[in-house]
Amino acid sequence: MAKNNEKEIGITVTKKDNFSEWFSQVVIKAELVDIRYGVQGCIVHMPWAMKIIRLIYTKIEEKVEEDEHDPFLFPTLIKQENLLKEEEHAGFTPEVFWITKGGNTTLEEPLALRPTGETQIYPMYSLWLRNHNQLPFKRYQSRHTVFRNEMTTRPFLRGREFLFFETHNMYKNHDDTLIQIKKDLEMMKELFWDEWKIPFKFFVRPQWDKFLGADNTYVTDTLMPDGKRNQMSSTHDLGINFAKAFNIKFKDENQKEKFAHQSCWGPGIWRLMAGLIAIHGDDQGLILPFSLAPYQIVIVPITFSKNQELNEKIINKCIEIKKQLSNLYRVHLDLRDEKSPGFKFNDWEMKGVPIRIELGPKDLENNQITISRRTIKEKSQINFDDIINKINLETKKFQKEIETRSTEYFADNTRNATTLEEIKKIISTFRGFVKIPFCSIETGEECANLIKAETQGAYVCGEEWPNSEDTPKGSLCPVCGKSAKKYVYIAKSY
Amino acid sequence: MAKNNEKEIGITVTKKDNFSEWFSQVVIKAELVDIRYGVQGCIVHMPWAMKIIRLIYTKIEEKVEEDEHDPFLFPTLIKQENLLKEEEHAGFTPEVFWITKGGNTTLEEPLALRPTGETQIYPMYSLWLRNHNQLPFKRYQSRHTVFRNEMTTRPFLRGREFLFFETHNMYKNHDDTLIQIKKDLEMMKELFWDEWKIPFKFFVRPQWDKFLGADNTYVTDTLMPDGKRNQMSSTHDLGINFAKAFNIKFKDENQKEKFAHQSCWGPGIWRLMAGLIAIHGDDQGLILPFSLAPYQIVIVPITFSKNQELNEKIINKCIEIKKQLSNLYRVHLDLRDEKSPGFKFNDWEMKGVPIRIELGPKDLENNQITISRRTIKEKSQINFDDIINKINLETKKFQKEIETRSTEYFADNTRNATTLEEIKKIISTFRGFVKIPFCSIETGEECANLIKAETQGAYVCGEEWPNSEDTPKGSLCPVCGKSAKKYVYIAKSY
Repeated sequence: MAKNNEKEIGITVTKKDNFSEWFSQVVIKAELVDIRYGVQGCIVHMPWAMKIIRLIYTKIEEKVEEDEHDPFLFPTLIKQENLLKEEEHAGFTPEVFWITKGGNTTLEEPLALRPTGETQIYPMYSLWLRNHNQLPFKRYQSRHTVFRNEMTTRPFLRGREFLFFETHNMYKNHDDTLIQIKKDLEMMKELFWDEWKIPFKFFVRPQWDKFLGADNTYVTDTLMPDGKRNQMSSTHDLGINFAKAFNIKFKDENQKEKFAHQSCWGPGIWRLMAGLIAIHGDDQGLILPFSLAPYQIVIVPITFSKNQELNEKIINKCIEIKKQLSNLYRVHLDLRDEKSPGFKFNDWEMKGVPIRIELGPKDLENNQITISRRTIKEKSQINFDDIINKINLETKKFQKEIETRSTEYFADNTRNATTLEEIKKIISTFRGFVKIPFCSIETGEECANLIKAETQGAYVCGEEWPNSEDTPKGSLCPVCGKSAKKYVYIAKSY
Repeated sequence: MAKNNEKEIGITVTKKDNFSEWFSQVVIKAELVDIRYGVQGCIVHMPWAMKIIRLIYTKIEEKVEEDEHDPFLFPTLIKQENLLKEEEHAGFTPEVFWITKGGNTTLEEPLALRPTGETQIYPMYSLWLRNHNQLPFKRYQSRHTVFRNEMTTRPFLRGREFLFFETHNMYKNHDDTLIQIKKDLEMMKELFWDEWKIPFKFFVRPQWDKFLGADNTYVTDTLMPDGKRNQMSSTHDLGINFAKAFNIKFKDENQKEKFAHQSCWGPGIWRLMAGLIAIHGDDQGLILPFSLAPYQIVIVPITFSKNQELNEKIINKCIEIKKQLSNLYRVHLDLRDEKSPGFKFNDWEMKGVPIRIELGPKDLENNQITISRRTIKEKSQINFDDIINKINLETKKFQKEIETRSTEYFADNTRNATTLEEIKKIISTFRGFVKIPFCSIETGEECANLIKAETQGAYVCGEEWPNSEDTPKGSLCPVCGKSAKKYVYIAKSY
């Protein structure tokens, strides 16, 4: 907001090598959040973040609606008795915020702020579900927030209030549950990877680390540049555990009462933001995948000249190009009078806009625009007549570049180990994922604990799912020495 | 969900004449809400409501973004000191819910659940605003909820938690504030009336009934069929009151520090829903304006016949028509096997879908569809070749019909009076708006109180704004007998 150009052009972040500091700076300098709100773990989402987040939500909503999920919205407040009903699930209660007063009056019964939807939604499912022909029954809630009294908090990684999305489905049987869990995975592949180029692995988690109340928990884990895993979603196979606790039953084809099978899926909006920022970003700031960029193309007129007539011509041409491109792309023409072109370049680089168009006196003279992709330093020129075709090519190159980078980044940070020594060495030097043969994610808790202790915190993320052909034939668990039927991945974690 | 057709076809609501009961029934039978959640004033928004509400939000968001408002999102939790800082605004505190515990630990300072955004947003504005070239500064938050410990609650009219939308703007001077308030009104005209056909009047409220902390409050009031006003929005001219309380200043062109002028605008999402439901609905349930109908056209195949080959032909033709219409409209083909056509007719009538297409054996034979608008009883036939043109005409007729009804309804329920006796008579027999000459919305509180007492609660809504030419020349205030410069409207209120 300063008018001093030198100061303005100085919008920079620290090098990304210093990841933790880089992340803290970039969320502020790209104007994603303001952390000065004054309540721990609660941030202000700024316009640039809200526009990205809206695109994320809209895409996920479209996907689940194509897959016949209907939207609903539950209150933020939960009755105490419901939260306590599912005993295994009550593991959340140490983290729950309680409302005890309305005005100056103490409430008869305290109300909880929703930590997640299960205990508020399933009492209603017990009222709604009657008959097998209602199944599968697929619903979701979106764009709401949940609350957890976390001790350490960080924007987009861990908050006391954070943005949520959750599906809650019911089925006739466990086969149908698994069909949906595969569909959930498919949707994530199509969005997280195909569109947004965030690499991930899909794991079934060890039994000792699943969601309380679930038979199995599945997660998508990506890696952050500091080598720690970032869990971007969880899918819970709830079996009939909640159905029993909340009495959710249906009459089958033979009029026999049965408990409903259930699953729920929650892509983490914050964790996706953290992944996007951390994996694509560079020393100049954010790099946004094309479909999530609020502005996909920004046009900066170069009007250094004192010749007002010329400046007007330049701006008119920019308006014309914006109009031409706006049918296909989200285009922004930056006409801020008080900012220099240099400031604008830095600003849009920091904010991660994929493609920048410049148009100055020389460009106008040569019937051309100057273009640069956020992924490379070089500029190139495009003739006015050829803009649509060439920009189309540029967008494809841009997506390809972030895909290649992400692929290499993920491969480079995934290593194999077969002994505890190797594991320790990798974790202490490179971090990232370590793929190891492992005795069992059912019964191997002691081995996992020992790995954790020896590595100061590396953690069994789980087995890749659905089961791959890639099995560690003849290999042994590096801890207990028992035969290893499967590989697991280990990593340090947020 | 019952399979008994007679029972199914029996989806009915009470007559709309019995408005209060009709409203309570229709929000449930049209599957807008479930009121069995168990926390007073907190409802479950069901899929049909969520889809309508999403359309409402999207339209309002598009409008304000065209008018250069940027989105942001603040936390739900507010620090106690901020809520108490603006003393006049602290009128909200009797209604505020307080969080006092996290897990089993008592918080050092209680946190409030947001009753509205001012006291959370303006401390940040104090940090953000520096320079005159940031003004006007326009932001909004959307799709969040607010909390008030209301004693009496009702779906879409008054809740302890309800859906919110709010703009919060800053300006250099009061002229700019008034320009924006006129723009806010313009946006409401374009949406509430031009698109959604909810009639309303725009009032500046009496000084004794404005928002605490505002210099002036402007509202859009519509009438419900029981003759009570439903306030669907409020716009507050905050002057520099909050700027002083929260120290929001900028440097003007001469580097002189000044307090920012502010206004905020909140169209009430719930109150709009209540207006839509109550004004357009009839004895068969909802009638949704075309642009807010999640399905604008529903296609019901008539497959009573045992001839499976014929049924298949009918369904294939329905699929074809759906495809043809889906480029232009939101179309739903109702293929529920277990439901009869009669049930489906009633169901979509209850849910207010504007246009229904039926296709049975006779239609197929005659190369036609049978169509009916939700607004009329008669059916008509359209030849397959002519579908697009004719449907286009039908949608226009439908919108014209709800517009005509709304216009007549609003005019019929607005009456003139010049004496207290006339006022009392109208309020006790017809209710609705009564337009009267009035001494002053600045100083006439005693007259307003007397009217209220004499009419068991009718209430001075305000003067129409911007000021009309229609003035009560030579008329006297029916209470104090002083010269009346303006008309006001009075009505009973929710």
